[in-house]
Amino acid sequence: MITPELLLQELQTAFSKHKYGAEPGELYAPIGYIMSLGGKRFRPLLTLLSASIYTDEWQSALRPAMAVEVFHNFTLMHDDIMDNAPLRRGEPTVHEKWNANTAILSGDVMLIRAYDLLLGIRPELMGKVLARFNQTAAEVCEGQQLDMNFEKRWDVTEAEYLNMIRLKTSVLLGFALELGGLLTGADEASLQLLYAAGENMGMGFQLKDDLLDVFGDPAKFGKQVGGDIISNKKTFLLIEALSRAEGTYRTDLEYWINAADFDKNEKVQAVTKIYEALDIRTFTEQKIREYFEKGLNALEGLPAPDGRKIPLWQFVHQLVERDK
Amino acid sequence: MITPELLLQELQTAFSKHKYGAEPGELYAPIGYIMSLGGKRFRPLLTLLSASIYTDEWQSALRPAMAVEVFHNFTLMHDDIMDNAPLRRGEPTVHEKWNANTAILSGDVMLIRAYDLLLGIRPELMGKVLARFNQTAAEVCEGQQLDMNFEKRWDVTEAEYLNMIRLKTSVLLGFALELGGLLTGADEASLQLLYAAGENMGMGFQLKDDLLDVFGDPAKFGKQVGGDIISNKKTFLLIEALSRAEGTYRTDLEYWINAADFDKNEKVQAVTKIYEALDIRTFTEQKIREYFEKGLNALEGLPAPDGRKIPLWQFVHQLVERDK
Repeated sequence: MITPELLLQELQTAFSKHKYGAEPGELYAPIGYIMSLGGKRFRPLLTLLSASIYTDEWQSALRPAMAVEVFHNFTLMHDDIMDNAPLRRGEPTVHEKWNANTAILSGDVMLIRAYDLLLGIRPELMGKVLARFNQTAAEVCEGQQLDMNFEKRWDVTEAEYLNMIRLKTSVLLGFALELGGLLTGADEASLQLLYAAGENMGMGFQLKDDLLDVFGDPAKFGKQVGGDIISNKKTFLLIEALSRAEGTYRTDLEYWINAADFDKNEKVQAVTKIYEALDIRTFTEQKIREYFEKGLNALEGLPAPDGRKIPLWQFVHQLVERDK
Repeated sequence: MITPELLLQELQTAFSKHKYGAEPGELYAPIGYIMSLGGKRFRPLLTLLSASIYTDEWQSALRPAMAVEVFHNFTLMHDDIMDNAPLRRGEPTVHEKWNANTAILSGDVMLIRAYDLLLGIRPELMGKVLARFNQTAAEVCEGQQLDMNFEKRWDVTEAEYLNMIRLKTSVLLGFALELGGLLTGADEASLQLLYAAGENMGMGFQLKDDLLDVFGDPAKFGKQVGGDIISNKKTFLLIEALSRAEGTYRTDLEYWINAADFDKNEKVQAVTKIYEALDIRTFTEQKIREYFEKGLNALEGLPAPDGRKIPLWQFVHQLVERDK
């Protein structure tokens, strides 16, 4: 009986055995390092879960699923350089532990190794898989570029922000689900539904990230609640607040954004209050619900026996209900 | 009648029409920029020339040939960040004209676009081409890592240096020739000969670069003669000199290497004299001849009608005889 837990275990085993390359050590050690930092591996899990709708031989999707995760971690390694991030999952980032040049070059070879994991796909599927992988990968880069562009702008619209997170985060979740179907012969309509399911759930997932940073339970959240507020990160909440705030709300919001020297807790409390007053919390929760519903509807509409969808269904519900 | 000049023209036309992506402009403009800086395009030309041995339909190799050139320029964009290089072909490097983050991310998407150019290869060839492309690409990264490692070492051996330039430069020339054969149905023995031809000529080519930097004709060379000497770049000549120099040659060589404040012309003249006295010039010229001969022998041994090899032969002789 296939369960998300079983597939995750198989994935972890495969990753623990996988070799990315040996010499020179300076080039390959950072790949082992970032992969060892963990992460929920939910992208490759989505691929295996969607493959298992169409076949009991989900193993044939294992290496391509791993390609998605290796690609994702490559983007983290390079994004951390660009974002000047000191920590990743509580540990030093690659450019901090080694240096920026090492993180650039190890990331490059990591992207190449992701493509290596696509080898072995049946020849008649290779062209389609490669085309979709490339398109998704380029879109993720486009999303990161937009994210960096937005750092310098204070007039980012809701639509622009949603498009950015779609590219940076959601398309890879869409592709992860689509890939499982692609590898196991799902028809075009099913592939589109799988993609839509992943893309919409990715949107909900990212917006929930934004929401939990402010309104998450500190005991469960693991990071400092309000971290995004402290750093003026342009989240969905801040962008909404900037577009809505008038009068004293606007004055207050701009005061806290521009404050160079401030008490962190005081800023978090003040901005959180503004969010509440402007109904940003409710509005964001509603958006998240809408995206998750669209995603679940796409899965529901997938023309496959309900029984075969159970493992994916189980996992997706865990994703939707997470509160940390 | 196929000639190297005709194929080069077709390549230039194809590159001038090729679109790498549009939005966001910050992401894609640097790709257009670095590709517009020119370069001899001899890697994709090698692919078309080897394809034209086996088929008159060399056009089927055009996009894969372009993939090799786009990959090569991706490595230049990222290497320039790592080497902190201000200029590339006399123009500002991407990280100078924009910034390092842009050069990282545009490079990333450029590597993805190189893979895009492999789409359209016949399905039954795709797996083999992708595997060889990946292996070559990873080796080029390994070569760049070794090159960076060597900057911090003064005990690099001749064998280590030759292995580094093999990885950083030669394997891509080997693959460029092999690819033309791969796409047009050359047998395994021929593929190995094509690869050996490119790899050995790549070695000769890189060593000639090292040699011309010191002993090139200033009127033809285009760069400052002795630039490598001024910057203590670990070329084949310097590594040989370090392994041979004894007595006053050693003292003099170490003096100039360690000199913080010096007259550039004086240093170039003094180190050049040491190279001459230690027979490094003759030795390097001999090595270059050996590699070119091995390369030419591999081509000679290629089981194909002599008439079909003429265009490749013509071009290879231009490469061997270049003095700038």
